[in-house]
Amino acid sequence: MAPAEYKPLFPPTLPVKRLPSTYARRREVAIGSVTIGGDNAVAVQSMTNTDTSDVDATVAQIRRLEEVGCEIVRVAVPDRRSAEALPAIKEAISLPLVADIHFNPELALAALEAGVDKLRLNPGNISTRERLEPIARELARRGTPVRVGANAGSIPSDLKIVYERDPVAAIVQGAHRYVEMLQEFGVSNIVVALKSSDVPTTVESYRKFASECDLPLHIGITEAGPGITGAARSAVGIGILLTEGLGDTLRVSISGDPVDEITVCREILSCLGLARAPRLIACPTCARAEFDVPAVAERIRGELMKLQRPVTVAVMGCVVNGPGEAEEADLGLVGSGGKFVLYVRGKMAAKDLELDEAVQRLITKIDSMETAP
Amino acid sequence: MAPAEYKPLFPPTLPVKRLPSTYARRREVAIGSVTIGGDNAVAVQSMTNTDTSDVDATVAQIRRLEEVGCEIVRVAVPDRRSAEALPAIKEAISLPLVADIHFNPELALAALEAGVDKLRLNPGNISTRERLEPIARELARRGTPVRVGANAGSIPSDLKIVYERDPVAAIVQGAHRYVEMLQEFGVSNIVVALKSSDVPTTVESYRKFASECDLPLHIGITEAGPGITGAARSAVGIGILLTEGLGDTLRVSISGDPVDEITVCREILSCLGLARAPRLIACPTCARAEFDVPAVAERIRGELMKLQRPVTVAVMGCVVNGPGEAEEADLGLVGSGGKFVLYVRGKMAAKDLELDEAVQRLITKIDSMETAP
Repeated sequence: MAPAEYKPLFPPTLPVKRLPSTYARRREVAIGSVTIGGDNAVAVQSMTNTDTSDVDATVAQIRRLEEVGCEIVRVAVPDRRSAEALPAIKEAISLPLVADIHFNPELALAALEAGVDKLRLNPGNISTRERLEPIARELARRGTPVRVGANAGSIPSDLKIVYERDPVAAIVQGAHRYVEMLQEFGVSNIVVALKSSDVPTTVESYRKFASECDLPLHIGITEAGPGITGAARSAVGIGILLTEGLGDTLRVSISGDPVDEITVCREILSCLGLARAPRLIACPTCARAEFDVPAVAERIRGELMKLQRPVTVAVMGCVVNGPGEAEEADLGLVGSGGKFVLYVRGKMAAKDLELDEAVQRLITKIDSMETAP
Repeated sequence: MAPAEYKPLFPPTLPVKRLPSTYARRREVAIGSVTIGGDNAVAVQSMTNTDTSDVDATVAQIRRLEEVGCEIVRVAVPDRRSAEALPAIKEAISLPLVADIHFNPELALAALEAGVDKLRLNPGNISTRERLEPIARELARRGTPVRVGANAGSIPSDLKIVYERDPVAAIVQGAHRYVEMLQEFGVSNIVVALKSSDVPTTVESYRKFASECDLPLHIGITEAGPGITGAARSAVGIGILLTEGLGDTLRVSISGDPVDEITVCREILSCLGLARAPRLIACPTCARAEFDVPAVAERIRGELMKLQRPVTVAVMGCVVNGPGEAEEADLGLVGSGGKFVLYVRGKMAAKDLELDEAVQRLITKIDSMETAP
């Protein structure tokens, strides 16, 4: 067989802020203190699931999100009470705040008045020019950015026939049309999302839109569901887009604690060489495992994910790949002959440890790495 | 800006058995009743984590794996007692059985004698020609397939210097060298894996090897760790490879119950249009959610994943995207005004339901779909 030519996808040195792309560079948009697009790093975001009108609960959740690396936070504003809570939330947090508005233009105006850093509007839910106009004029006057958050679950009614035949065309056309309306009213800071719960539809919508327009992109797979399947579906779709150099800000939509969304966002970016985040390597366990690797790994992950530094920890059940992985990691724990070996920066630091002692020493080492240079 | 040309990545009609590829088509290898490579669908596999010498526990776990869609199963054979258990395991199961051997050639010979459907050998652990020869001759005599399972955690000692400078070169070179040794002894049914716990290293190793050699590929990201981060890392790496048309069999390595590995494998294949598996769509929940979506979604996922049919269920907290998603799904549950609406095949089947009743009716519908044509 004639060998095909091998061309690497990834640059030789990682991390980088974004992977090589054949698409045009995106325009920059500043969302409060975080600028996305251009050559900026991909920003990580999530959305609270507290009652937005409960200021204390919402602020507490936003602080937890910030602790694990969230850079932009969104809150739903489904009613007047939620809109009224926005000034107090904004006052109490340092992350850029995005208000998510669906049906009621008055709530969008109230959110802008409260000083939010970005609005998210859904072209399917505030769809007419008449309803959009007062919001758009206020966005233009203030210079506040807006995300056009197109979603296959809420396609404008006149595009539903297009959608049945060609979902990508309908999603992209709906986004273009909304962008043009906003631009006619003088809005220029526009971010676009084109989400579907179907990965190929989402990926093709972003790719098609990106080939036609240079606005920055908020990427994600919508309604990916809970836990490991939600994480996997999001990672497949987002991973394909990021590998093509697309995506300026990123939200993983998985059902549950939004802290999990940030954990998955960081994992996706980090494993593609797009961020320097902590990494946990742990064997899947087999008949060789000399201890309960999943339990120990989960315990260590909790400590590790708090770090803002790219520390790698390997938790390995046996000596097959254990020493190899542990030597490459910053910290390693390997089961061997019923005892445990601890590795620090590639060197064996202690052996013949009992499990509890080994785990405790490893966690102490993780803690000490947070403050180290 | 001059628009870049948009070329779809995905074929217009899904599912397909494999995505378009610029790499040469792979040779076919039959692993028991499952043939991989060529134009065959990507086969899903996992590895038990029971003590292999405990036949009852191992067989029970293999049956659980088969129930959720596992097509090939591997067991570790770290000692003589495990090798002796292989005939009884093989007798009790219908899935093709792979024996994972690392250090001891005698165990490989015993596994072949027991009639396993494939061996997995690690070039870093049985590395010399002298130690490989008896195994290779027996593989050739029997025609039994073998996987060359190269792994960055166990690089042959003479390639470690290459690895430090260029991990991809070392992994690929180690695999080629082992393949050539096997071929010299007459072995022809060879599958290759080139895994690292680092996604770019893994992806580039497979891409480089695939450009040089047409042997079928077993893909995965090694030691991806537990839960959502393990699922995300595996999905990013495997997703990139599958999108390039690479990968003939697939194993997700996440720490924990191997059933989760199959769930993630199927999710990855299904969300890329490479399999017809059940799909759960559920909103990530926000302040709008009218019920505990994650809890309900997890409860429904358990029922759904038992199906071997591509049923899609949407669990949506509110009316923003709820009705849209529910209308597209086979079954949908949407919160609305404190009550619940049930959709069946795109039509509203019942409204004003209490939560428990709605969930129960949905689960009953899932069960009835298993036997429907």
